[in-house]
Amino acid sequence: MNIFTRSPRTPAIVLVRPQLGENIGKAARAMLNFGLTDLRLVSPRDGWPNPAAGPAASGADIVLEQARVFDSVAEAVADCAHVYATTVRKRGLVVPVVTPEEAAREIRTQAEPSAILFGAERSGLETEEVAIAGKILTVPINPDFRSLNLAQAVILVAYEWSKHSDLAIPTEGEEREPRATQGQLEGLIGQLEEALEAAGYYHPPDRTPATKNTIRTILTKADWSNREVQAMRGVIRALVNPRRR
Amino acid sequence: MNIFTRSPRTPAIVLVRPQLGENIGKAARAMLNFGLTDLRLVSPRDGWPNPAAGPAASGADIVLEQARVFDSVAEAVADCAHVYATTVRKRGLVVPVVTPEEAAREIRTQAEPSAILFGAERSGLETEEVAIAGKILTVPINPDFRSLNLAQAVILVAYEWSKHSDLAIPTEGEEREPRATQGQLEGLIGQLEEALEAAGYYHPPDRTPATKNTIRTILTKADWSNREVQAMRGVIRALVNPRRR
Repeated sequence: MNIFTRSPRTPAIVLVRPQLGENIGKAARAMLNFGLTDLRLVSPRDGWPNPAAGPAASGADIVLEQARVFDSVAEAVADCAHVYATTVRKRGLVVPVVTPEEAAREIRTQAEPSAILFGAERSGLETEEVAIAGKILTVPINPDFRSLNLAQAVILVAYEWSKHSDLAIPTEGEEREPRATQGQLEGLIGQLEEALEAAGYYHPPDRTPATKNTIRTILTKADWSNREVQAMRGVIRALVNPRRR
Repeated sequence: MNIFTRSPRTPAIVLVRPQLGENIGKAARAMLNFGLTDLRLVSPRDGWPNPAAGPAASGADIVLEQARVFDSVAEAVADCAHVYATTVRKRGLVVPVVTPEEAAREIRTQAEPSAILFGAERSGLETEEVAIAGKILTVPINPDFRSLNLAQAVILVAYEWSKHSDLAIPTEGEEREPRATQGQLEGLIGQLEEALEAAGYYHPPDRTPATKNTIRTILTKADWSNREVQAMRGVIRALVNPRRR
């Protein structure tokens, strides 16, 4: 397989706990305008399908029909290696921040599939959800008037992605190992959390979520391939279960 | 008071015969998100002011309050030297066509003021109105699904204009932590090698150098800061010396 000649990657658009069906439809319409069709919904408030979505999609029915529903962000992005969390807010996370332009460039040139998370209309993404992403995607906006709605955020990101769609993908560079999928990475994170739990690492209890997010961010940042993820899983196994000598 | 009126040039947004007050409000909201405040209305169908505009503006009242109404496109752009007509349709006019990106670049660098025309919701701009403009601004869009509404067209143009302005710097992100020094990284690698040695991980002996190199490469690749390196050292300590419970 030649990873350099296939068509550029299209990101999955993941709406996390969207409230109004109308906004799901508007997001679908925004997507299709710029050629995106992979819509994923995490726990839509009013279930799915939602009769309010169709009229708002203004004909982008194919996006709604193909939309998939998941119970968690982790499940929704399990097959993706690059996950971006769209948020304008500061979080207590040390995660690289990129513009839509930078994200679009990365998504188009990365060999592995990407996903872009958008939070609920009012509340946005939870810190734990942002922590699943390796990067924060922030739309640079008027600091005195931040009022992007969900479909507008989607359309700006989709527009940036589409902009250079006629351009050839750079064919330079060495072939490198593909980044592990989110599912593979979750395997490592879950194993380590379990081991640390057993080792009494998490204390005091009220710091546990922050500590877990920190470790998740560190491991996500590492940009490991599945081979590397599996090697680190072997390391953890060895430390937890030393060989008798 | 208004940081957006300083140079570089901000374009006027001209809505030509807009039908719904709601769409005028949405356009105002889209503008202010990206620092544009000069809204001009040509013959709004339902007159002006329009009570439906305010709620849709979601707080962008200053844009609506300062909006000016004109009877014709020619009057609306009388003070502008560069006029762009936003349309996705082919017209029987020989006029240069630019993308939002190209238009934004021109507007920002031209010495004289610019205006961008947007047509009525359904009918768009008349050929005579396009002819007033020196250039056509076209948003590159999915040829099989052209469904941009008025506010979406405005937001894409405003977004492009803002991208390279001072306010377009994403200041929300945390400053990136410096990468750990090689000495700090060696501390982690040495600690892990020692722990793995004690756990009987290295076998057979002739594979030990290769295994150590693999782990070194994995940890080097991770691009961690010293804070992250120290956190991982804490993780290893916890796994090697579980807390008694």
